[in-house]
Amino acid sequence: MAGGIGSRFWPMSKTSFPKQFLDILGTGETLIQMTYRRFLALCPKENIYVVTNDDYKSLVMEQLPEMKEGQVLCEPSRRNTAPCIAYAAYKIHFQNPNARMMIAPSDHLILKEKAFEDSMSLALEQADKGTLVTLGIKPSRPDTGYGYIQFVDEGDDKEVKKVKTFTEKPNLELAQTFLDSGDFYWNSGIFVSTTQTMINAFAEHLNEVHVLFEPKLKELNGPEEAETISDIYAVCANVSIDYGIMEKAKNVYVVLSDIGWSDLGTWGSLYTHLKLDENKNAKLGKNVRLYECSDTLVHSQKEKLMVLQGLDDYIVVDTKEALLVVKKSEEQKIKQFVTNLKAEGLDDFV
Amino acid sequence: MAGGIGSRFWPMSKTSFPKQFLDILGTGETLIQMTYRRFLALCPKENIYVVTNDDYKSLVMEQLPEMKEGQVLCEPSRRNTAPCIAYAAYKIHFQNPNARMMIAPSDHLILKEKAFEDSMSLALEQADKGTLVTLGIKPSRPDTGYGYIQFVDEGDDKEVKKVKTFTEKPNLELAQTFLDSGDFYWNSGIFVSTTQTMINAFAEHLNEVHVLFEPKLKELNGPEEAETISDIYAVCANVSIDYGIMEKAKNVYVVLSDIGWSDLGTWGSLYTHLKLDENKNAKLGKNVRLYECSDTLVHSQKEKLMVLQGLDDYIVVDTKEALLVVKKSEEQKIKQFVTNLKAEGLDDFV
Repeated sequence: MAGGIGSRFWPMSKTSFPKQFLDILGTGETLIQMTYRRFLALCPKENIYVVTNDDYKSLVMEQLPEMKEGQVLCEPSRRNTAPCIAYAAYKIHFQNPNARMMIAPSDHLILKEKAFEDSMSLALEQADKGTLVTLGIKPSRPDTGYGYIQFVDEGDDKEVKKVKTFTEKPNLELAQTFLDSGDFYWNSGIFVSTTQTMINAFAEHLNEVHVLFEPKLKELNGPEEAETISDIYAVCANVSIDYGIMEKAKNVYVVLSDIGWSDLGTWGSLYTHLKLDENKNAKLGKNVRLYECSDTLVHSQKEKLMVLQGLDDYIVVDTKEALLVVKKSEEQKIKQFVTNLKAEGLDDFV
Repeated sequence: MAGGIGSRFWPMSKTSFPKQFLDILGTGETLIQMTYRRFLALCPKENIYVVTNDDYKSLVMEQLPEMKEGQVLCEPSRRNTAPCIAYAAYKIHFQNPNARMMIAPSDHLILKEKAFEDSMSLALEQADKGTLVTLGIKPSRPDTGYGYIQFVDEGDDKEVKKVKTFTEKPNLELAQTFLDSGDFYWNSGIFVSTTQTMINAFAEHLNEVHVLFEPKLKELNGPEEAETISDIYAVCANVSIDYGIMEKAKNVYVVLSDIGWSDLGTWGSLYTHLKLDENKNAKLGKNVRLYECSDTLVHSQKEKLMVLQGLDDYIVVDTKEALLVVKKSEEQKIKQFVTNLKAEGLDDFV
């Protein structure tokens, strides 16, 4: 899934160049390239599909040159994760009714790649039993930016558990309760199931989407694909897979995982995964010089020099077109800054 | 005088493009262009000379296109203000032994142009009496970055006073004493005298410089000018006019002036002259957006967008090549930052 905009990563992430296409960690690989490589260990490359917005097709082809054009499914508009997953599920199901799907966002960070493979193998096994499976991440803090999955704790040490409830982003008090209870894991947004199980779930819980895709299996695999998906998306509901299916389905299992995961949803979440200097500063950029700075994340592009003095607990991000300085504790305001820029008509900057 | 580097205005001012050539206020005029225009009201344009470093000759010619090449005196190396003034004084004296000189830095701010003209007229009158004259600025704060001029207070309300002492940059306690006493004014670095008086002063107080220039009056006005000045500068002392002459001379007068002056020596001194918003922020730049910021000076170039949140008492300056963020109260550290960059070999940035 590579259709998101990543507005909370502004100004590095822009609508015209979202975060999955950025080498945010400065490792030489973009997030989608890292995601692609992660799945190469789990399935043949010709079985990897990217679902993205029409606008990003050329970016995908450029960054994943091994991909054939037919492996890039283009959405004509943004409809959240449920239609995105439906598109892939129904299309692939026509090609192979016994297919299994591993569904993952393209803009997440996973540091423990071997552990990820192991968790995905367990998830595939469980999916073969005809259930929906999700990867749950052991929470390390009462994060209010994530959804939580409560599982049925039967006192055993199995890594695969039956899911009791999905919970949307909680407030801090509730998140702390979840953390303390021990039977709530973060919802990673990574799902595994057979295409048949997924289609059954759409038929049962999101029938309005099912009835759009189900009659068009063949067309989604033929020359009329673009026109077909355009017609479907024109009338399709905008709904997330979590809200539309996972929260309602009864046959969901979670694999308890420890894979060094972050959704990189915010600059702050990136900060927690970076190497820090002795003053807890994270420097991404070649020419960053800090004096009397602490707990600060700095990101500069290419050769740009940054000399910063006297900043405590800030995020500083500089691109060619825009500079952002914001208190790390206030970074949820970035979304509003972006909204304000759009309202001013400064769309080119966002 | 347009040979300075302006390192305290880094990163906007660079060795290759110093502050006098910048439109720091965003008015459409660079500082040297404003200075030139200011003197057009006081003397014919063919009588205006710019003394600058060889490296900046093309910048001067570009920014002051009305100037003829012979009006730009090029220094082969940096030798502080005394040799700079000597060069002009001896050269002009050969052309006209009755000449009067108004000597001014090209990178200062003067907001009250009419008052400046009036003060300069008084200074010219006084200079005709065979004395050295300086413009003194009524101090508004105990600034430790300026030199001070103490005058003889004879209880009258004349604007022209005899100078008692020149004082180098004082410490804060002394500066406060100067401010309280009422008979100390800031040394603006703007001087007026006849060339004859100036040459006499060199002969008396800086004879080592006098003996270099005095035999070469003709050569400084002929085809061998460049070679001559090169020979002189190769052995000439590096000394300021204040230290070399003004502090020693007995016949110095000061015109008490109120001309809206700043030497723009630092970002902080610029800040005190800018229009502030309701949170005392000064914004120089088209696309600057501030949230919960106060007492902060922001300078962006061209179209660059800056979104800043949660900054109190900072200086933020962004150029194409470098970003500086520094506490306004710590801006004296900029000089050290620049020194450190040079030590790292990052000369291109400074």
